[in-house]
Amino acid sequence: MGSDGMDIGFLGLGIMGIAMARNLLKKGFNVTVWNRSPGKCEELAKEGASIGSSPADVVKKCSITIAMLADPSVAISVALGPGGVVEGITPGKGYVDMSTVDSATSSQIAKAIEAKGGDFLEAPVSGSKQPAEAGTLIILAAGSESLFAKVKPAFDAMGKKSFFLNDVGSGAKMKLVVNMIMGSMMTAFSEGLALADKAGLSQQTLLEVLELGAIGNPMFKLKGPSMISGKCPTAFPLKHQQKDMRLALALGDEVGQSMPVAAAANEIYKKARSLGLGEQDFSSVHQALTQEAANASDSAKAAA
Amino acid sequence: MGSDGMDIGFLGLGIMGIAMARNLLKKGFNVTVWNRSPGKCEELAKEGASIGSSPADVVKKCSITIAMLADPSVAISVALGPGGVVEGITPGKGYVDMSTVDSATSSQIAKAIEAKGGDFLEAPVSGSKQPAEAGTLIILAAGSESLFAKVKPAFDAMGKKSFFLNDVGSGAKMKLVVNMIMGSMMTAFSEGLALADKAGLSQQTLLEVLELGAIGNPMFKLKGPSMISGKCPTAFPLKHQQKDMRLALALGDEVGQSMPVAAAANEIYKKARSLGLGEQDFSSVHQALTQEAANASDSAKAAA
Amino acid sequence: MGSDGMDIGFLGLGIMGIAMARNLLKKGFNVTVWNRSPGKCEELAKEGASIGSSPADVVKKCSITIAMLADPSVAISVALGPGGVVEGITPGKGYVDMSTVDSATSSQIAKAIEAKGGDFLEAPVSGSKQPAEAGTLIILAAGSESLFAKVKPAFDAMGKKSFFLNDVGSGAKMKLVVNMIMGSMMTAFSEGLALADKAGLSQQTLLEVLELGAIGNPMFKLKGPSMISGKCPTAFPLKHQQKDMRLALALGDEVGQSMPVAAAANEIYKKARSLGLGEQDFSSVHQALTQEAANASDSAKAAA
Amino acid sequence: MGSDGMDIGFLGLGIMGIAMARNLLKKGFNVTVWNRSPGKCEELAKEGASIGSSPADVVKKCSITIAMLADPSVAISVALGPGGVVEGITPGKGYVDMSTVDSATSSQIAKAIEAKGGDFLEAPVSGSKQPAEAGTLIILAAGSESLFAKVKPAFDAMGKKSFFLNDVGSGAKMKLVVNMIMGSMMTAFSEGLALADKAGLSQQTLLEVLELGAIGNPMFKLKGPSMISGKCPTAFPLKHQQKDMRLALALGDEVGQSMPVAAAANEIYKKARSLGLGEQDFSSVHQALTQEAANASDSAKAAA
Repeated sequence: MGSDGMDIGFLGLGIMGIAMARNLLKKGFNVTVWNRSPGKCEELAKEGASIGSSPADVVKKCSITIAMLADPSVAISVALGPGGVVEGITPGKGYVDMSTVDSATSSQIAKAIEAKGGDFLEAPVSGSKQPAEAGTLIILAAGSESLFAKVKPAFDAMGKKSFFLNDVGSGAKMKLVVNMIMGSMMTAFSEGLALADKAGLSQQTLLEVLELGAIGNPMFKLKGPSMISGKCPTAFPLKHQQKDMRLALALGDEVGQSMPVAAAANEIYKKARSLGLGEQDFSSVHQALTQEAANASDSAKAAA
Repeated sequence: MGSDGMDIGFLGLGIMGIAMARNLLKKGFNVTVWNRSPGKCEELAKEGASIGSSPADVVKKCSITIAMLADPSVAISVALGPGGVVEGITPGKGYVDMSTVDSATSSQIAKAIEAKGGDFLEAPVSGSKQPAEAGTLIILAAGSESLFAKVKPAFDAMGKKSFFLNDVGSGAKMKLVVNMIMGSMMTAFSEGLALADKAGLSQQTLLEVLELGAIGNPMFKLKGPSMISGKCPTAFPLKHQQKDMRLALALGDEVGQSMPVAAAANEIYKKARSLGLGEQDFSSVHQALTQEAANASDSAKAAA
Repeated sequence: MGSDGMDIGFLGLGIMGIAMARNLLKKGFNVTVWNRSPGKCEELAKEGASIGSSPADVVKKCSITIAMLADPSVAISVALGPGGVVEGITPGKGYVDMSTVDSATSSQIAKAIEAKGGDFLEAPVSGSKQPAEAGTLIILAAGSESLFAKVKPAFDAMGKKSFFLNDVGSGAKMKLVVNMIMGSMMTAFSEGLALADKAGLSQQTLLEVLELGAIGNPMFKLKGPSMISGKCPTAFPLKHQQKDMRLALALGDEVGQSMPVAAAANEIYKKARSLGLGEQDFSSVHQALTQEAANASDSAKAAA
Repeated sequence: MGSDGMDIGFLGLGIMGIAMARNLLKKGFNVTVWNRSPGKCEELAKEGASIGSSPADVVKKCSITIAMLADPSVAISVALGPGGVVEGITPGKGYVDMSTVDSATSSQIAKAIEAKGGDFLEAPVSGSKQPAEAGTLIILAAGSESLFAKVKPAFDAMGKKSFFLNDVGSGAKMKLVVNMIMGSMMTAFSEGLALADKAGLSQQTLLEVLELGAIGNPMFKLKGPSMISGKCPTAFPLKHQQKDMRLALALGDEVGQSMPVAAAANEIYKKARSLGLGEQDFSSVHQALTQEAANASDSAKAAA
């Protein structure tokens, strides 16, 4: 299934957005782009993109417009502000917001789009820069099912798999659940690395054993070596991981699900934040767990 | 590297042992077997094995003898009891115990073998019935490094990878660390499945999303569907998983490593045990987490 | 220090409010009361109170007005709604809100009072019906220190001790901290009772031992017998205790304080809520902890 | 009920033992003492005590002999070693071990005493030096009920209350349950103090509010000020508190009782031990909780 020369608008050319728009161009879509600072637009224009003068202008020119914006406040202002998406929406047009926003923000935008007769889809992604460039994102869409069907060829150009999850808000919730499992797994992994080290086992061997077995996974493989060496380049900031733990626990509170392991993991991330590690990669939670061992040999004696 | 017609003794033909001995036969080793109940020996004799009359008899006939026994007490009695391994050991012979035993048991057997001039290797495995049959076990060996070199071709016939971990006891400890991470991951996974369900998300979709992402792993893929359906055939009994959590936490206590996530997970397994799930698969910990939701709709109202 | 015939307004004659106003009357204050449903006012009129026609009317008649209202939304409407407190406030008058509200609500009311030149004090209490009647409440005041000095004789009539905690919002936060410690203590107590029972010890004897020692406290003494018998009359609903745990953890998140024990306790309260115990006394968290022991004897065998 | 000039042997004159023996002398008992280093015996001889040449000698001279020894190994050697208690025991004589020992040690001593026809009572105490001197210990006795009745007047001289708890081992278990509740309460208290401080509330005021309310207790009152000032004189070493948490959790594991709050608290004590605080007072667990806040202001910014 190809692009059939389909017109697609694209708003927001940050690290993620530019890679995603580029993949659309490569697959033969006619892409009209807009970005707050215009330099990025010119870069893509050289690769065949048209440039819109405002979000509203892009929406007027295209039947479907996709957005990939920095945060909820930017998503609101691009959709609802002056010259924004809503000004250009007419019946039959579709708006797909792939930014990571909370479900209240999604619902607010959805209402405004639908009030003008448009179709809305929230579609947050799992995956960061590298999968965005490789076109291997996982797309968690919710909202208008007919718009999902129409935009599917574009999703196929940007991701390896897209899911339709029913009501607006479900995409954000699914992402929270996945990130909560990831956050707990990271702390379990960190505890295992720390225990191995204190028990005189090779952490490097532990990584090899884990990789070969039933719980081997790309995250352990990617993060393990840098956790051992203490140098974790920041891919996903710890403060964002902790925020997702907090929001997932709040969701559990709302729906009545007790989650003792996520709660214990969250307290370690909070401790890591209080140690000043909030801007570091979330795998630096390992420093919070191992820092407490400063005087391990003394304490081992003391405990004897 | 092949078997070169090497003589290998094999003690213990349970579910795991018979599959492992069969892989040795297939790869051309001359295998002499012994089992407490002789029926299993005859089965392998049809496939080319010789039969020993006692552990000591097997050891006398072979330069290296491997054991795969049910538990520490059987391992002790086969090694040290009347007609046991120690009676047959002479300088230059090697004994490799692949049973899952604690490090104190390993050390006791090691001492007795070495007192007679023999070489000893503990070599617990990661993986259960299916990898034993497929010859894809992961072998965690520790003890005599020269015996490890000699027995390596046999390990290659039974496993996809073998590790040498130095001192006797390290194999048991490494297995504990791996099983602790596995146990915590399982509870994190269970919490995610439960939260998805309560939040109105498809658990099936969650499985698909997880499989595609950075934390996808064979255990989630294998156990997920049966956890959703509530039917988990027992591969690894929950009471054994809980025992490994307890022992890993005790090891952490001994070496001074705080592990709050494993501690929280352990309490859920204990609760599952108290609900009568000890003999079920360890993934049935999910029932303990979701059982508490009996009156979720009432409680959601109550909390409003 | 007595009342000196001081004029005090009193808004809200619920279970707590009527007992508090009555104590003011007994100590010789001239009390003008108002309540949404007027029956309660007439009851107090027989004991010497005057009746105001609206919150604004009460405020106009008295130099200081105290409120004891059901929840934040009532507190807002009595203070800011039509015929509300703000309509009667003039420079030099004081308003003291003793309701249990969050700090945002307190701040909103404070602003409106101060904009009219009035003085404001938030003054939530620790203690429920019985201490309200006995005049032994603990009062956690914050806001205007001069108003605190003026209202002190009235506080002395209603409570055994009053504290001045500086800025508006501090009273609410102090109450959260106290309730969080209480909530964790209750779960620790519950675990001890459950362990004693399973270990074959007399729970009654445990209560006696606790009472005599360094950790003996009125809550253990009051709640212990009803927890053992399984009949806990509701003094403080479990859903409110769980809400306070949640809010205290959120405060810890905001200020960067990791609190693993409160987090673990909170998950037990959440579980209790999901079991339908939200409207029961918070001590019925004990049922959530012991319910999991349904088949203890089976599981003990299984673990052997 | 008085001593009626009853003969009591007393073995072990450490800090606790000398205070307890002195209280027996004061109440008119004829006390025969023995201690490993004889200086302490002479001290008591001046106050009216007789001196025995060995544990066996004391037992021969007295119908009932009490011991208060340092630890399980000393308890075993005094009871079962050469010149020990068992050598002097004959039918009708009673031996009361008030040392803090595990239930296995108690059982071993009980068996040896009973094999010679003697009666045995384990009777660990709750309370340390000051209550020992004041004669206000709490005594948790188990074993021979008839011996309990006979020794009751002596218990009354040393303690404010004594309990009979049935089978040998129950005294040790009851003490574990009490210490587990105490350990969890201490961490809950510490979290509250830490949260108050970070939230800008006065910790001193928190102590006053707690003391007046339903959860006020002597431990909070005694330990609070030193926890705030950071100077906690060692009354009960943290490593012993952590050991009791571990043993109580092990007991819970054995009988199938999940205890998530005690498990979370135990991990904080383990962390404190790994920070080198094992020999400090158990209230110095507060340092482990607050140490993580080193860069709180940074992290608060990072989280914003």
